[in-house]
Amino acid sequence: MSSYIRSLAERARAASHAIAALDPSRRAALLSKMADAVDAGRTDILAANALDMQRANEAGTTGAMLDRLKLDDGRIGGIVQAIREIAALPDPVGQVTRSETHPNGMTVEKVRIPLGLIAMIYEARPNVTADAAALCLRAGNAVLLRGGSEARESNIAIARCLHSALREFDLPIEAVALVEDTAREHVLELLQLTDLVDLAIPRGGERLIRFVAENARVPVIKHYKGVCHLYVDAAADPVAATRLAVDGKLSRPGVCNALETLLVHADIAGKWLPAAMGTLVRGGAEIRGCERTRELFPDAKPATNEDYDTEYLAPIISVRVVDSIDDAIAHIQRHTSDHTEVISTTDQAAADRFVRAIRSSAVMVNASSRFNDGGQLGLGAEIGISTTRLHAYGPMGLESLTIERWVVRGDGQVRHPESAQA
Amino acid sequence: MSSYIRSLAERARAASHAIAALDPSRRAALLSKMADAVDAGRTDILAANALDMQRANEAGTTGAMLDRLKLDDGRIGGIVQAIREIAALPDPVGQVTRSETHPNGMTVEKVRIPLGLIAMIYEARPNVTADAAALCLRAGNAVLLRGGSEARESNIAIARCLHSALREFDLPIEAVALVEDTAREHVLELLQLTDLVDLAIPRGGERLIRFVAENARVPVIKHYKGVCHLYVDAAADPVAATRLAVDGKLSRPGVCNALETLLVHADIAGKWLPAAMGTLVRGGAEIRGCERTRELFPDAKPATNEDYDTEYLAPIISVRVVDSIDDAIAHIQRHTSDHTEVISTTDQAAADRFVRAIRSSAVMVNASSRFNDGGQLGLGAEIGISTTRLHAYGPMGLESLTIERWVVRGDGQVRHPESAQA
Repeated sequence: MSSYIRSLAERARAASHAIAALDPSRRAALLSKMADAVDAGRTDILAANALDMQRANEAGTTGAMLDRLKLDDGRIGGIVQAIREIAALPDPVGQVTRSETHPNGMTVEKVRIPLGLIAMIYEARPNVTADAAALCLRAGNAVLLRGGSEARESNIAIARCLHSALREFDLPIEAVALVEDTAREHVLELLQLTDLVDLAIPRGGERLIRFVAENARVPVIKHYKGVCHLYVDAAADPVAATRLAVDGKLSRPGVCNALETLLVHADIAGKWLPAAMGTLVRGGAEIRGCERTRELFPDAKPATNEDYDTEYLAPIISVRVVDSIDDAIAHIQRHTSDHTEVISTTDQAAADRFVRAIRSSAVMVNASSRFNDGGQLGLGAEIGISTTRLHAYGPMGLESLTIERWVVRGDGQVRHPESAQA
Repeated sequence: MSSYIRSLAERARAASHAIAALDPSRRAALLSKMADAVDAGRTDILAANALDMQRANEAGTTGAMLDRLKLDDGRIGGIVQAIREIAALPDPVGQVTRSETHPNGMTVEKVRIPLGLIAMIYEARPNVTADAAALCLRAGNAVLLRGGSEARESNIAIARCLHSALREFDLPIEAVALVEDTAREHVLELLQLTDLVDLAIPRGGERLIRFVAENARVPVIKHYKGVCHLYVDAAADPVAATRLAVDGKLSRPGVCNALETLLVHADIAGKWLPAAMGTLVRGGAEIRGCERTRELFPDAKPATNEDYDTEYLAPIISVRVVDSIDDAIAHIQRHTSDHTEVISTTDQAAADRFVRAIRSSAVMVNASSRFNDGGQLGLGAEIGISTTRLHAYGPMGLESLTIERWVVRGDGQVRHPESAQA
């Protein structure tokens, strides 16, 4: 007897074959229809969201959490627009990434296919329901969606719109399978379904992500946090370095590609640090510095070792003076979250050395950490950012929801012609 | 206080940075030196292997297990040759897989880097010690090797040769870190080291692989077994179909890319099946057939449902007559191990339909299942075959031991120029 979750996952997996079998143009048309359906379903979605908001208010939810949950006409317009943009992206499925003809006459190709069934486990924001479904289906996958209980009504209303589009295309609605019963034991069970779920992607706070990573038997792609560094080299252009520091820390402090730590070469510190720190402070930043930083900029609070491992998600930055690029690299290798690191330098050799020694998912030479984002890097859309150095690393778009596999075409080639004469 | 395994993994991870920082030509030279060292160390390796063989004999080990453990001059020559071939392969590290210049002037590239630290968990064959070390290091990684206790002395002797080469290059010997204490609790601990180990690859029997998969917190790439199918279409060339069946089943029945099941279209079964089964039986195969197979070839034993999920690793094959290509696809979708499937047909539309509907790691159109192998597909060497549809799928060579990540080069570009004026 199948459990609630296993039965849902079985139907979703079966549906994944139907989505994979669609022509690329038909998959794009399905997404356009989904955008239309969400657009047409505004009233129902807003009514459902009002219910979620009311419950959240009654439960005493406030601030950012409440804001993430809230939908209005503008935000629904954003969801519709996002689905249309995903519909318009090039189809990664069927892309040939390697092709050879062998001496025995057979052709050997590596060709992208969908992953199969992808489980999304996420919190609050109801737009993830539509975004994740659109990205997974566009790349030929089915998706199992487990949103937070706080957004349950909104998620159901959005999924209903997506289902109506699937029905119009005579496709099984379980290609977008929403886990409506948000009991936690269902998540636990879902994460054990190694025969049905090809990949789990958690999206939310570090606590949710650790819960998924620690309880999953299925493969998980994730990032816990972004502790991003800017190394200001001895040969940095001081003006560019300040721009990178300000944009990296202050343009949006609450996101994972914001800077958390500045490493400043001792040879430039005297000249650069006081003025740059002044600019950051005027922009609203709090500085936590090492001793040498505090000698140059006495307003800085003292930084502890814990600071160097902290993602502040706030306008706070830790600053450390280092004696060499090697010391900067060693600091990063020790404290990195494998997300994004930046070097500011006019010395090509220093830039090359930094790029080679650092293995984070994105390295920026004289460009802001804030560019580590699917849209900014040219993926069109992003389902998450991976710091797992497997398959996907960095922002994951459509391509990361597919895998290359082998197709061999021959006219009867065998490996051991002798034995085949038997 | 670090445990034995954590401390070893910490040193191996530190060593991985040194291997990643080597020039490609120097990595190749290191491997050549390793080949020389194994060649020069023959006497010690054979003496160590004699000890392992003696213990295995005393423990009552026999047959295939004993054969896998045994080294002789020829097999050591094979190890040396394999390392030299890996040394000669093109370097995947630094390969640029995507490159764009953005309107703001910055260039955005996706560049291959090593994975970091790879843990190999394997049994019996001591040659894996050298093979895995050579592949991992060639792709810029460090490796943590945990071989079986039965091959402990051989593995230590081989590792000692590899270490002498590392020493000559002034590299930390822990880049090839051998777990000499083979107590099982160390494996369990190793599989939890998510902060140090980037990937675990188990190699051995299904029991070992399940143990690793079920106990790992670190990412695992694996395949349990190969239940490979040959579908003989209504439009098959009968001679080619027989060649593919004989090569697939009989050229080496004990390997994962051997055939286990034949699916035969009803329209060709009367004409093809009796003669083809006769050929297989004369070649030494046992036939287990469905009822319709047994009507056409009464010598076949009856096949059970369990047969269709079995990797025989022996000259046994299950045979089922199907009414359509859709029935064949449905059978495969239900019983596949995602390893390799073959279609024999002269009908291009049937071939396309099969390739699209089947998502196994390799699909063969009119070519033998036995070609699903790193060497045969052109990878040069193989560290394993993956049926996990993530990152690597199918035979994994050097490229699968690396990951693409982003490198952005600019001249001070920021995402929010307004805020950077602060």
